[in-house]
Amino acid sequence: MAASYQIAALGEAVLRAAAGCISASVSGDASVHISSVAPLQTAAGNQLSFLANPRYRGAAAASGAGALVLSAADRRALFPDGVGLGRALVESDNPYAWFALAAHLLAPNEAPAPGVAAGAHVAADATVADSARVDAGAVVEAGAVVKARCRIGAGAHVGVAACIGADSRLHPGARVLSGCMLGERVIVHSGAVIGADGFGFAPLDGRWIKIPQTGRVVIGDDVEIGANTTIDRGAMGDTVIEEGVKLDNLIQVGHNCRIGAHSVLAGCVGIAGSADIGRGCQIGGAAMIAGHLSIADGTLIGPGTLVSRTISSPGFYTGFFPLMTNRDWEHNAAALRHLHELRSRVRALEARLGEGGPKDD
Amino acid sequence: MAASYQIAALGEAVLRAAAGCISASVSGDASVHISSVAPLQTAAGNQLSFLANPRYRGAAAASGAGALVLSAADRRALFPDGVGLGRALVESDNPYAWFALAAHLLAPNEAPAPGVAAGAHVAADATVADSARVDAGAVVEAGAVVKARCRIGAGAHVGVAACIGADSRLHPGARVLSGCMLGERVIVHSGAVIGADGFGFAPLDGRWIKIPQTGRVVIGDDVEIGANTTIDRGAMGDTVIEEGVKLDNLIQVGHNCRIGAHSVLAGCVGIAGSADIGRGCQIGGAAMIAGHLSIADGTLIGPGTLVSRTISSPGFYTGFFPLMTNRDWEHNAAALRHLHELRSRVRALEARLGEGGPKDD
Amino acid sequence: MAASYQIAALGEAVLRAAAGCISASVSGDASVHISSVAPLQTAAGNQLSFLANPRYRGAAAASGAGALVLSAADRRALFPDGVGLGRALVESDNPYAWFALAAHLLAPNEAPAPGVAAGAHVAADATVADSARVDAGAVVEAGAVVKARCRIGAGAHVGVAACIGADSRLHPGARVLSGCMLGERVIVHSGAVIGADGFGFAPLDGRWIKIPQTGRVVIGDDVEIGANTTIDRGAMGDTVIEEGVKLDNLIQVGHNCRIGAHSVLAGCVGIAGSADIGRGCQIGGAAMIAGHLSIADGTLIGPGTLVSRTISSPGFYTGFFPLMTNRDWEHNAAALRHLHELRSRVRALEARLGEGGPKDD
Repeated sequence: MAASYQIAALGEAVLRAAAGCISASVSGDASVHISSVAPLQTAAGNQLSFLANPRYRGAAAASGAGALVLSAADRRALFPDGVGLGRALVESDNPYAWFALAAHLLAPNEAPAPGVAAGAHVAADATVADSARVDAGAVVEAGAVVKARCRIGAGAHVGVAACIGADSRLHPGARVLSGCMLGERVIVHSGAVIGADGFGFAPLDGRWIKIPQTGRVVIGDDVEIGANTTIDRGAMGDTVIEEGVKLDNLIQVGHNCRIGAHSVLAGCVGIAGSADIGRGCQIGGAAMIAGHLSIADGTLIGPGTLVSRTISSPGFYTGFFPLMTNRDWEHNAAALRHLHELRSRVRALEARLGEGGPKDD
Repeated sequence: MAASYQIAALGEAVLRAAAGCISASVSGDASVHISSVAPLQTAAGNQLSFLANPRYRGAAAASGAGALVLSAADRRALFPDGVGLGRALVESDNPYAWFALAAHLLAPNEAPAPGVAAGAHVAADATVADSARVDAGAVVEAGAVVKARCRIGAGAHVGVAACIGADSRLHPGARVLSGCMLGERVIVHSGAVIGADGFGFAPLDGRWIKIPQTGRVVIGDDVEIGANTTIDRGAMGDTVIEEGVKLDNLIQVGHNCRIGAHSVLAGCVGIAGSADIGRGCQIGGAAMIAGHLSIADGTLIGPGTLVSRTISSPGFYTGFFPLMTNRDWEHNAAALRHLHELRSRVRALEARLGEGGPKDD
Repeated sequence: MAASYQIAALGEAVLRAAAGCISASVSGDASVHISSVAPLQTAAGNQLSFLANPRYRGAAAASGAGALVLSAADRRALFPDGVGLGRALVESDNPYAWFALAAHLLAPNEAPAPGVAAGAHVAADATVADSARVDAGAVVEAGAVVKARCRIGAGAHVGVAACIGADSRLHPGARVLSGCMLGERVIVHSGAVIGADGFGFAPLDGRWIKIPQTGRVVIGDDVEIGANTTIDRGAMGDTVIEEGVKLDNLIQVGHNCRIGAHSVLAGCVGIAGSADIGRGCQIGGAAMIAGHLSIADGTLIGPGTLVSRTISSPGFYTGFFPLMTNRDWEHNAAALRHLHELRSRVRALEARLGEGGPKDD
């Protein structure tokens, strides 16, 4: 279900979608009609492309795109007189978001054909909205609720008494286990598991006694959860993912964590139990967050970084071993094994020379 | 199927379940009846809560729980005269395990309604015990054996000639592939894959020849395997997970590994092929274990730590880059790239001054 | 469907399979018949075993294997007079590859019994070759193509208009989503997800606007993809995995990556979007590759290493914090937090003594 827009009409529609949060002005050839989006390199005259990084100015100048969305600085650098050389130019303070909204308008999500497919398994007392779709091989267990216009993909699972909010989508093989609650417009990608037992055991005489995990996972509106990501149910209380959070693939979220609204976490991140991550945080790929700590709103964590203590002050934190040749690594790692001694030796030299170096801890 | 216990009766039942491994004594209000567990903050008069960390003494003092299980030290600090102020007090040398056992008694695992659901696919020559349950969309392949009181969840898979021991549970979408063997009371969470091919290839003229992976995965009693965790089958021999091992989510176990009894591994751990991990080890989240090495019984590995060599002596080992601000990291990482030279410079200074620093390696 | 070979006939068959890329000569007892492979420790007289690492010479000398494949050096060390002591000896310049090819000849992949199982869900307009097999619970969506001799395992998924090349295998629960293209002889292990949406969002006023992900994943011939590995579809262009690539379990490949032919990636590796990995690379377990960079053909990356910049020159690169006892780690990590200052102190000492140390950056 693709759409086509004259460029000025597209601009008006984007501004409405952005609720006034993006300014933009169209110059150049205003007669262009746009029907889809494409990268700079392959775009044709009926396609929209974007320039968000000055590195790609050359590709933008050479692009066959019918319309280009770009910043004022890029527009001035490439098209100083505002003439698009056959293209419409959309100058915006947020070209990437403008492009994203335009892409949605040009290829709106299709409402699924409603109904329960042959080969889907829906319990007699589950509630599936008439406008929702359940694909073949999917299972909706007793007492579950699937709200309006949801799509439950092939082989997906909605557990006992789970609730999937309106306009949400479980991709093929996504699993939302018993009692878990999803908000509206939530996207769960294939293989994600929402609501497995948290990892809780009490040691007893050399073995481990399982702590029954009786909480839920509660997920806000507009959350997206990546493929094969796992979010465990709370031990007694709930694990909470607030609205607008975006989780990439292969992320682990332990029991009783909270992830604050609009935080984004890149792939392969792990979060141990009871961590409390603030709103608007950005966590780099493969970062690891220890349990029972908190991270301030708006904190940035670099990739591969282990967060082992509470971060009270927002900022940009990093901690990974820098890349080097293996030969350099062998030498430097050997020295690192004795770094504490090296510091003592420097201190001894300073003492010998009467220098007042910084106090060691 | 919840249960309700007068507190003294609950204490007796826990002691039986613990086979004498926990001592406990009940004081305070012995008339309390308990029917479920709850966190300190929300517990009501018919609920049991626990205090295992002195940090939460304040919450315990304020808790509405009908019964509290806690250590002698916490009991003396909070209730020095042994009066529970309306609560029963269970003083134990292992309050967390006491609580875990009580929680199981209060909410015992329900035996599944036996039978093969409509929409389950069970091969004609598979053997499924009468007391077992196979849910919709699950597949039990030829020659497989599913023993008494097992539950094979929706969309789960039991491969050709695989065997699932009594009282085990495959959660929705868990997969046990051909020939793999599970002990009794094993829990496999959603999306876990037991028995995919190990990663074995021989280089030949710039390409890779697959080594057929013909071994199995053999799993002992009382093992728990987290969501989306993968355990590969052995190349020729078996991959072995001994009794009582607990694996969290998103763990990778390579072919021909052994994990010794009662070891616990936190989320996102990776173990390369043929690693031999001892009994009673504790491995922190996102630790990585290289292949063809061994780790002594009872070893602790910190989170994010790469184990690159055999550990013969049990202890607590760590190796992750400490967290710092990104600005500090940039400076320190730059210096780390030249740490070996810095050591040489210190040695030169020592030589100049006639100091005898430690011998460098 | 096992086979049995007299050892000389097996040698001829391997040489044909290797297309002349391996030299080998058989000595010792040439009358041996071989019907399967086994490890050195358990092999019997009708089994083939291999010695590829001189560490295991003792096991080879004691092995009951009917035939041994080994290097010239190992053969001379163990059997200097070429007499196998009842065994056939296969001396090869590549014993491991010789063994791998022999193992395939002895246990050839069985063609699946063709047909669509009861309980499989194949869309009316999907195209499934007569010689292919679709197992129970699998779903083949509209417009999909499953070519000759493929096996689509139980609960696996072939999305709308996806294409699975001849002789490929989706293991149970593997998922190839809409529009993705697989070459011939591709193996996708259980739980892998090919073609989930890439992770692309534009920030707008404190929230995140999803960038529609409209590209595909395109996979070459002879690729193997591990269990629960995820490969995201391109944002606009495609994500490309070239021929002969081998991916282990729990790997994340971001949108618009390219992985060059015959590269091998060990478990738990993460690759952010738009990374371009060369041909013939070897990436160690849990390495992390940042986005928008490239890695030269033939590069080796050590385990646990974060690649944060382009690697233009092939070589062996490493960067992980070395393992140490937790006590040593605490001291060394504390010193590492102030390494930059330590370098300044050394510089000050050098200046005081008039030494010309290396220039700091």
